Amino acid sequence: MEQFDVVIRNGTVATASDIMQCDVGIKDGKVAMLGRGLPAGKREIDAAGKLVLPGGVDAHCHLDQPMEEGLKMADDFRSGTISAACGGTTTVIPFAAQARGQSLRAAVEDYHRRAEGKAVVDYAFHMIISDPTEKVLKEELPQLIREGYTSFKIYMTYDDMKLNDRQILDLLAVARREGAMAMIHAENADCISWLTEQLEAAGLSAPKYHGHSRPMLVEREATHRAIAISELVDVPILIVHVSGKEAIEQIRWAHGHGLRIYAETCPQYLVLSADDLDQDGYHGAKCVCSPPPRDKENQQYVWDGLADGLFTVFSSDHAPFRYEDPQGKKPGGKEVPFRYIPNGTPGLETRLPLLFSEGVGKGRIDLNRFVALTATDPAKMYGLYPRKGTIAIGADADIAIWDPHKDVTISNDLLHHDVDYTPYEGMQVTGWPVTTLSRGEVVWNEGQFDARIGRGEFLKCGLPDPARPKKR
Amino acid sequence: MEQFDVVIRNGTVATASDIMQCDVGIKDGKVAMLGRGLPAGKREIDAAGKLVLPGGVDAHCHLDQPMEEGLKMADDFRSGTISAACGGTTTVIPFAAQARGQSLRAAVEDYHRRAEGKAVVDYAFHMIISDPTEKVLKEELPQLIREGYTSFKIYMTYDDMKLNDRQILDLLAVARREGAMAMIHAENADCISWLTEQLEAAGLSAPKYHGHSRPMLVEREATHRAIAISELVDVPILIVHVSGKEAIEQIRWAHGHGLRIYAETCPQYLVLSADDLDQDGYHGAKCVCSPPPRDKENQQYVWDGLADGLFTVFSSDHAPFRYEDPQGKKPGGKEVPFRYIPNGTPGLETRLPLLFSEGVGKGRIDLNRFVALTATDPAKMYGLYPRKGTIAIGADADIAIWDPHKDVTISNDLLHHDVDYTPYEGMQVTGWPVTTLSRGEVVWNEGQFDARIGRGEFLKCGLPDPARPKKR
Amino acid sequence: MEQFDVVIRNGTVATASDIMQCDVGIKDGKVAMLGRGLPAGKREIDAAGKLVLPGGVDAHCHLDQPMEEGLKMADDFRSGTISAACGGTTTVIPFAAQARGQSLRAAVEDYHRRAEGKAVVDYAFHMIISDPTEKVLKEELPQLIREGYTSFKIYMTYDDMKLNDRQILDLLAVARREGAMAMIHAENADCISWLTEQLEAAGLSAPKYHGHSRPMLVEREATHRAIAISELVDVPILIVHVSGKEAIEQIRWAHGHGLRIYAETCPQYLVLSADDLDQDGYHGAKCVCSPPPRDKENQQYVWDGLADGLFTVFSSDHAPFRYEDPQGKKPGGKEVPFRYIPNGTPGLETRLPLLFSEGVGKGRIDLNRFVALTATDPAKMYGLYPRKGTIAIGADADIAIWDPHKDVTISNDLLHHDVDYTPYEGMQVTGWPVTTLSRGEVVWNEGQFDARIGRGEFLKCGLPDPARPKKR
Amino acid sequence: MEQFDVVIRNGTVATASDIMQCDVGIKDGKVAMLGRGLPAGKREIDAAGKLVLPGGVDAHCHLDQPMEEGLKMADDFRSGTISAACGGTTTVIPFAAQARGQSLRAAVEDYHRRAEGKAVVDYAFHMIISDPTEKVLKEELPQLIREGYTSFKIYMTYDDMKLNDRQILDLLAVARREGAMAMIHAENADCISWLTEQLEAAGLSAPKYHGHSRPMLVEREATHRAIAISELVDVPILIVHVSGKEAIEQIRWAHGHGLRIYAETCPQYLVLSADDLDQDGYHGAKCVCSPPPRDKENQQYVWDGLADGLFTVFSSDHAPFRYEDPQGKKPGGKEVPFRYIPNGTPGLETRLPLLFSEGVGKGRIDLNRFVALTATDPAKMYGLYPRKGTIAIGADADIAIWDPHKDVTISNDLLHHDVDYTPYEGMQVTGWPVTTLSRGEVVWNEGQFDARIGRGEFLKCGLPDPARPKKR
Repeated sequence: MEQFDVVIRNGTVATASDIMQCDVGIKDGKVAMLGRGLPAGKREIDAAGKLVLPGGVDAHCHLDQPMEEGLKMADDFRSGTISAACGGTTTVIPFAAQARGQSLRAAVEDYHRRAEGKAVVDYAFHMIISDPTEKVLKEELPQLIREGYTSFKIYMTYDDMKLNDRQILDLLAVARREGAMAMIHAENADCISWLTEQLEAAGLSAPKYHGHSRPMLVEREATHRAIAISELVDVPILIVHVSGKEAIEQIRWAHGHGLRIYAETCPQYLVLSADDLDQDGYHGAKCVCSPPPRDKENQQYVWDGLADGLFTVFSSDHAPFRYEDPQGKKPGGKEVPFRYIPNGTPGLETRLPLLFSEGVGKGRIDLNRFVALTATDPAKMYGLYPRKGTIAIGADADIAIWDPHKDVTISNDLLHHDVDYTPYEGMQVTGWPVTTLSRGEVVWNEGQFDARIGRGEFLKCGLPDPARPKKR
Repeated sequence: MEQFDVVIRNGTVATASDIMQCDVGIKDGKVAMLGRGLPAGKREIDAAGKLVLPGGVDAHCHLDQPMEEGLKMADDFRSGTISAACGGTTTVIPFAAQARGQSLRAAVEDYHRRAEGKAVVDYAFHMIISDPTEKVLKEELPQLIREGYTSFKIYMTYDDMKLNDRQILDLLAVARREGAMAMIHAENADCISWLTEQLEAAGLSAPKYHGHSRPMLVEREATHRAIAISELVDVPILIVHVSGKEAIEQIRWAHGHGLRIYAETCPQYLVLSADDLDQDGYHGAKCVCSPPPRDKENQQYVWDGLADGLFTVFSSDHAPFRYEDPQGKKPGGKEVPFRYIPNGTPGLETRLPLLFSEGVGKGRIDLNRFVALTATDPAKMYGLYPRKGTIAIGADADIAIWDPHKDVTISNDLLHHDVDYTPYEGMQVTGWPVTTLSRGEVVWNEGQFDARIGRGEFLKCGLPDPARPKKR
Repeated sequence: MEQFDVVIRNGTVATASDIMQCDVGIKDGKVAMLGRGLPAGKREIDAAGKLVLPGGVDAHCHLDQPMEEGLKMADDFRSGTISAACGGTTTVIPFAAQARGQSLRAAVEDYHRRAEGKAVVDYAFHMIISDPTEKVLKEELPQLIREGYTSFKIYMTYDDMKLNDRQILDLLAVARREGAMAMIHAENADCISWLTEQLEAAGLSAPKYHGHSRPMLVEREATHRAIAISELVDVPILIVHVSGKEAIEQIRWAHGHGLRIYAETCPQYLVLSADDLDQDGYHGAKCVCSPPPRDKENQQYVWDGLADGLFTVFSSDHAPFRYEDPQGKKPGGKEVPFRYIPNGTPGLETRLPLLFSEGVGKGRIDLNRFVALTATDPAKMYGLYPRKGTIAIGADADIAIWDPHKDVTISNDLLHHDVDYTPYEGMQVTGWPVTTLSRGEVVWNEGQFDARIGRGEFLKCGLPDPARPKKR
Repeated sequence: MEQFDVVIRNGTVATASDIMQCDVGIKDGKVAMLGRGLPAGKREIDAAGKLVLPGGVDAHCHLDQPMEEGLKMADDFRSGTISAACGGTTTVIPFAAQARGQSLRAAVEDYHRRAEGKAVVDYAFHMIISDPTEKVLKEELPQLIREGYTSFKIYMTYDDMKLNDRQILDLLAVARREGAMAMIHAENADCISWLTEQLEAAGLSAPKYHGHSRPMLVEREATHRAIAISELVDVPILIVHVSGKEAIEQIRWAHGHGLRIYAETCPQYLVLSADDLDQDGYHGAKCVCSPPPRDKENQQYVWDGLADGLFTVFSSDHAPFRYEDPQGKKPGGKEVPFRYIPNGTPGLETRLPLLFSEGVGKGRIDLNRFVALTATDPAKMYGLYPRKGTIAIGADADIAIWDPHKDVTISNDLLHHDVDYTPYEGMQVTGWPVTTLSRGEVVWNEGQFDARIGRGEFLKCGLPDPARPKKR
């Protein structure tokens, strides 16, 4: 046996199913050996008393995504992936978004240019399809899937991106034929716009009314509709950022009828609530995202779904808009009606600590579920497994070493994104990733980020097994 | 590094979450190392082209269990554990059954005597409690739980074992206090006896009427009742041998309401049906078990539940009664009315191949789910993890090496139990365990069983994490 | 045309489906004619501005029922039926209760003796069966059904009356064969006794803990079980005094599966709540009944069920125990632990005004539903239709004339029962029956009761159509 | 008392809640008196042994509705209302359909011209809104509602009529504000067009594929969506022509959540099935309607819903297209692909006999439910009660006298519509209306229709009580 490049020693290694006391031998950026008392490596890391976990796979985040006039994302691939790495995440999958009228391939190529030379951890692309032309359906999408872009997102809301049922059907038919995974943002656009107009007509435009404009039922309706379309085409889908009870009930209904409907949720649905949209002054704008945070009862339903397997993926939906910024939530310092507040909250770096502390730490989920939800299952869902998402022989040595007892008060000062706030400011958590390795290289350690900008590699995704139609 | 005792080389190792190409180094009966190109061991096993899986944990089987007058189980710990080993199972958990009027400790001690010197793989005990006296509730049960008997079974049917709701409440309260796992056989006894009398009064006593005497609704009712009692006491339970749709719907309902209800199913609910109870002559008696096999639609619901995580445990419920035997299904060669046919089918050895072939082979579940259902999750459910149920550093080297392409026509001649039939006679399967290791020792290889009788060790179970009340 | 005995003139007549302005001509105690401008009658009643409704049928009330040692009902047939009449109810169906060991016929005969010469309105009997011996099942019950006692009640709780599932099966089989209607009190006795002991062991014995000892889930469980047994026997049943959401959901589930499960609810589940059990001092004892009153959300579910047809019957479950009485709720002035407080609240006289005011008056149900729930459908349910329960040609002229605008503050002083309290003391209602006719005879008018004691007749019930198994 | 114009003597009169033996005295076209032994009328009708029922209200039928180029309805108000009268129906509510671009008022006025001088029984109009412009929403619709057009239909499918969710929201908001009832045709248009293209691309264009193009799930999805929109706007709706299980389950779900969702079904969902779409040759075209007939299991779910009150309205959805007709189902004798076959089946005259025979005759529903579903509740639903829909003092004397024992083999020769087929050809029924009175005038008797063409009057509808938002 050759000498290992790195040996992580004496830690508690956890995968999505196992927990073991052992060393991890790393060679050429890969996990080469698991055992106790491994021979010395060129670099030795002592992980005694620590958890050695697969680096996180954040399968839903937005970085440097081209926006409408007047809006700009605060994070590009540089700041975004640094923030990820410092939060224990070693793979990100942001979105190459097609604009209406744009070629899908052009959108992907443009997005490569935005990523190039900037990422510090590895990344793959989902696509967002806003204009499923004949060319997209028949040529571009099938080809891109075959080239390693095996997942795409469909919006049922937002004027510049929403697709109608017919377009969704056509896209799911491509997904089925090619073996790709479709992600669906399920909210009923017409209901939202109608409610928004009612609220505005009544003079109700403060940030908290964002929540009123998107009640649970508009998410429930779209979830049911997405499930029906998936059932019709006979292809699995993944419902992203599920926020609470009524949508969850639809998904459970689907499972009870043998349908393969996957679901994702995010930290904002566990620890934020409608109250956070109703902060003093205009600060609620910081928590404007869609679907909006709900209430305690809904949070409990989300926790139940995380614990019992309803959810397969836990992502950040990092959508980085600054609060005080001409192109952000309070443009030019002006308080705008809720419908003009850009949707989204930042969370790449806090995703894992929040779930760890509130979930594992408080006994709501176990450590294996934590790994499954944050790393292994997202990697499987999007065709990155077994290269990413686990600590197994042959896998990339993407590893986060956690101090499970470290108490941290979340503050935006601690974070590495380029957003000027965090919705979790002041929240106490226990447990934080103290060291992060990407392909065997230590990029974050002892509070310091240190890695070459641009070292992150683009990942071609395989056809994911979860996207296969159900065998019956 | 010392020399390994055994190295399994070049196989495809699978756990409940991972699949990797690597060698397995075994030392002192434990998994010592995972990696590629491990140094040579004293014994080398070539597993190229093979699957290297955790040995099965059969968490529900009956061996040499004391029976009522006139009945005798065909398998004792010797034949039962040999059959298990030859079918890839390396841990069994049969039942120390308390008779009415008997001390629970006496039942456990008696069962130890029955096991002693006979088992060839390791074993733990569940208890069956048929007489929850004050002494049992206050002394014996708590003490036995603390001594490593951390699970017990409750029958809602069978005259000699059934408990009423009050007794179940008292037992679940002990389970909650002590951290034990209660397993529940959920069928409504009164409904069954009433139906049985109606059928007999109408002259309908052939084996197939066994199924008519226990329709789905009697299982559904008892499942709902068990869930309600579990909810009241606020302690998880596991519903054993769930047979189909209506019971599954109750369990899904419980999950949707945040209750921690676990479920087990068995091969007979996947590949047998009511038609098998209605074979020519009296042969249907071979498939008399409770709940009875249902129909195709119900099978599909069970498959759905295996795939989507509704079920946590897949067991054999091996209940070995001979067909032609004075103490068996056709006592003295006589065809008896269905109510006198001993309930149960044999299946220790066929459990894994049937699920592998019908499940993994046909694409209904993936290999990780197979491992989870048959080994890892049962071990976790009953406090045997991480010693049993996985291939991880430090775990017992209980391993089954599978030829995934081996075609086998099931025949009782091939099997090693002492039952004179298998309900799966003639069934074609693809995939079979060709080598089994128990604590690093090869006990089954190339069609030969070879191990010292009595080498199997008794396993004290820990308090299982799944038995903890839900954190909310 | 002969001269009418009575003409009710110019009122608004309502039936379960119709509302019409017309006169009602009464002859020989029957409704003889409906029309406008009827010829003069011997007695003329001006109902201008009033509602002319069928007299109420209170299908669930307890009068002079033999009780365990130390308990005595405050109302006999005299005071009970006077109270009924003054509250607009013209038919009562109390219970001939079999004691364990007693012949069912003897119980019925005894009850006739109790009724004889006392009732002022007509009455039928349900039976309560607490001891379904062979003789009861094979002889007494079938014969009594044929003699006009076509409904009987089954208790799943209360030590002196509860039946096990087998006994319920046997009784439902008789109901099916003979065409009778079984009423079921659905609460799980074992769960209640277990909880009661836990509460008492913890020193929690105040009246409010009565509610804690019978949470919604014990009612839900028993409801599911009753439905399952009904499904097995294939005979309709009626679940009495349904109190809230979880039981209602079970009944809706049954309807969605094509089962004919009827349901009854009572005023205490609409206007009382757990708060009423938690009054200062010991006064909560006044509201101790089973199932216990729930909370606002459950009340809403009950209202939904009344409005949409889930419920067929609205009864009082009048159970008259005095508060200050050696044989009542506070025996000898002593505050007893909740388990010793006799269960039940009085309500014969307030049943109709409460539903009218809270239901019709507040727009939750319409007038036709009011009539259906309180008169027509109970009469149909128990084989008294078309003689009772409606205003139709040939029906008994049992009529209540309501002043829909009369404001009343409920006070026990106003009521005619022999109970020393009403749980509705101080409640404001609008609408009250100002005149009641029984078989054409004015028995209550302008605040005066005036009728011969003993004028009430016993009614033999026919086989009710709702008891027929479903045609499919 | 003046002399009656007509007395119907000795019949069994049934309303939605009552059944009574009595005479019916009619004066000035109204029901004037109910009683036995009424004085002689100018005309006497002997109804001994007969049922005297409210004339049917067919609340969903299409007559002389302007169609797209190349299509023409076979029935105008003349033939349509004659057919209705001969089938026991005395009120019809066809549709004034707005074409895109057309003023709604113009559509209503045009439809009046089509009706004028032709109808033989009374009629009201629903509107169909296909173009909810600002003018329609703000002026025309509110005004028309106030003028007595208090219900309108919304299509979620059909290219020339379908509305999007936003349009539906706007219309329901008007319904809420003005107190009107919205009827919704719930099928997902995009799913249907997508499926249709798939089927056509595969060469599957025979009539039976019409059913394949509109599977249950497209109805379920639209039903769920309609319910969600109704919930959002907080206004009741009525889902028309519900065809089976999955849509029914959505409606039951809504009821369980306290929503006021009404439902209608039609004969074709009780007695036709997918098999009827798959007749030899092209004859299946006769049964092409939307939603399509389903299967036996779905029929049973519809029966369950009729019996237990899920459905409030039973209509014909009479859509009269000839089979052999240049403007019909087989245009110019040519067999066209299913998508070009005009949707709909005739059934004005057979609606009542089919439900009577299959429902009342076979014990699936009782006579009161029959009256409620076919007359009383439709009249209430659309603001025609108490003038129409019942036999009550002051109501129009619209009465059908039924011979409940009359055996009829349905044949198009017997029917009075102008369609050249009936889908029920050859079906045996028992029970048929032998005499029909409209406002006291005998229009159909002893197999003869005899009435002045044009005697039918237009009915202004009141604001229906069922359209009020729920009081909670």
